[in-house]
Amino acid sequence: MTAPGGPLGEFELIRRIRGMAPAHPSVALGIGDDAAVLRPPPAGSSTVVTTDLLLDGRHFLLDECGPEAAGYKSLAVNLSDVAAMAARPVAAFVAVALPKRSAEEIAEGLMAGMAPLANRFSLALAGGDTNAWDGPLVVCVTVIGEASPPAPVLRSGARPGDVVLVTGPLGGSILGRHLRPEPRVAEALALLEAAELHALIDLSDGLASDLGHVLDESGGLGASLDAHSIPIHPDAERLASRSGRSPLDHALGDGEDFELCLVVPPESAASLLRSPPPGVTLHRVGEIEPGPGIRLRDRDGSTAPVRVRGFDHLGAGGEAGGHAG
Amino acid sequence: MTAPGGPLGEFELIRRIRGMAPAHPSVALGIGDDAAVLRPPPAGSSTVVTTDLLLDGRHFLLDECGPEAAGYKSLAVNLSDVAAMAARPVAAFVAVALPKRSAEEIAEGLMAGMAPLANRFSLALAGGDTNAWDGPLVVCVTVIGEASPPAPVLRSGARPGDVVLVTGPLGGSILGRHLRPEPRVAEALALLEAAELHALIDLSDGLASDLGHVLDESGGLGASLDAHSIPIHPDAERLASRSGRSPLDHALGDGEDFELCLVVPPESAASLLRSPPPGVTLHRVGEIEPGPGIRLRDRDGSTAPVRVRGFDHLGAGGEAGGHAG
Repeated sequence: MTAPGGPLGEFELIRRIRGMAPAHPSVALGIGDDAAVLRPPPAGSSTVVTTDLLLDGRHFLLDECGPEAAGYKSLAVNLSDVAAMAARPVAAFVAVALPKRSAEEIAEGLMAGMAPLANRFSLALAGGDTNAWDGPLVVCVTVIGEASPPAPVLRSGARPGDVVLVTGPLGGSILGRHLRPEPRVAEALALLEAAELHALIDLSDGLASDLGHVLDESGGLGASLDAHSIPIHPDAERLASRSGRSPLDHALGDGEDFELCLVVPPESAASLLRSPPPGVTLHRVGEIEPGPGIRLRDRDGSTAPVRVRGFDHLGAGGEAGGHAG
Repeated sequence: MTAPGGPLGEFELIRRIRGMAPAHPSVALGIGDDAAVLRPPPAGSSTVVTTDLLLDGRHFLLDECGPEAAGYKSLAVNLSDVAAMAARPVAAFVAVALPKRSAEEIAEGLMAGMAPLANRFSLALAGGDTNAWDGPLVVCVTVIGEASPPAPVLRSGARPGDVVLVTGPLGGSILGRHLRPEPRVAEALALLEAAELHALIDLSDGLASDLGHVLDESGGLGASLDAHSIPIHPDAERLASRSGRSPLDHALGDGEDFELCLVVPPESAASLLRSPPPGVTLHRVGEIEPGPGIRLRDRDGSTAPVRVRGFDHLGAGGEAGGHAG
């Protein structure tokens, strides 16, 4: 059916997406009914569900990055949340509000950004909702995954004495990297197999803020981080040269790195650092302590509290990349 | 944590929602981690997933209806989709973009609209995503449900000779009723128990359009509807007095009635009409035929094709209630 307002109606768009969506054995029925139907996860497994809503002007600038990047990021950040449970993605549901003036072109760009990720991670596009309006582009993605024991790995399992590791260099993602996060799905599954994971989170709000969530959810613990051990991304250096803040400050405070932060017992940390799973990079950044708060330890052993300047999605300004000032 | 931009940050809001959310035995972990964790559905059951994105200016007019009605409608339309599979709702995920000027007030209004529905249907609010921006209110709700055999009931099972029934009067919901749909969850479950349901859909796009989906998905069938049997809502009469269209035209074409349309074999229809399940109203409106298209039959036996003027979410104008012209 052709829509009155444009060359491509909702039903035609849905038909096209239906044709593009890869199959997944857990999806009994995808796009085309009132709801999708999923088969139960394998015996003993549980289902994880995550949803993220991305806004033009806030999480991306459509005029600068184009719809393909917006589509990629919208799906990738949800896959990152599934990775943060050490789960395996199964199906995505994509709801959009498309700017009316170029709804069809944007819809196709979004799909072009999502399809390669869906294929790489064997993820079905199992449903969604398509709207056009006079407002900016809105993309809301929900991803369902399957967690096989000992997953899901929660934020709440950290214990004093545990070691804190991250999977890559941090900071300055707003220079562009935030549009192309690499969902650490395979890395999380490999780590789950290789070590006892006490806690796992993806770095969306910034290391200090996200580690803070882990500490809060683990019963009000604290952590000490080694200033010289925090892997600093070249983007953090570049950004520091104009922001007046230090590269370390960016590595600790900037959001949207989408690396994993894992908390493991010391013996697991030693073994992981000695022989990390193939393809997984690991940096030891500090350890969990009983007293609340995050402290930064200098080479000389002196410590100072870390001021959390993570990303508050509700209060932050309109800056794309979403860093609260 | 208090947000820089306002009195209530995302984390505080999430904490509050967490406190309001009813528990559900299938939700192992709700708000507060990277993803929610659901237990597998009861043996033999499957999981249904549906998502709907609602926009200020399109699905509701926030300045006129207020955030409580917007919250109610956003959740209710998703529950209606779960009902349309004859499934039982389990958990909702609510992602919002809140207008910055009054983010907190709107968030509280949305929750006030959703909480009674969540409680009535024993639905957990298990996750979500909160953003504030300079744009209009956007609410994206995903609901997960459990379908016990013979559910889920799909759109695709209609057969020639089957009877088409609806659960209530149709048309004119744009006069206000579209904001307060009654999700027919209990009705669908009662019908599932009482009869052999070949196909089931909720009337969101309009009877002609939604029945058209059933006919398409059932292999290109058709239907004849009895003009004098279609239950016409008083709102359709009221709207007709100013629209220049007939009340029947509104009953056939208007969207967002959110009644159920069911397709059952003749013997089930007879038994359902003789003794409907308690609390369920049923109207016989026509029957399925092998030839494609929908025909409207007059009292004198003459027939005319029904022109589908359903709701196309992508192409339709900015009218709240969303009727394509």
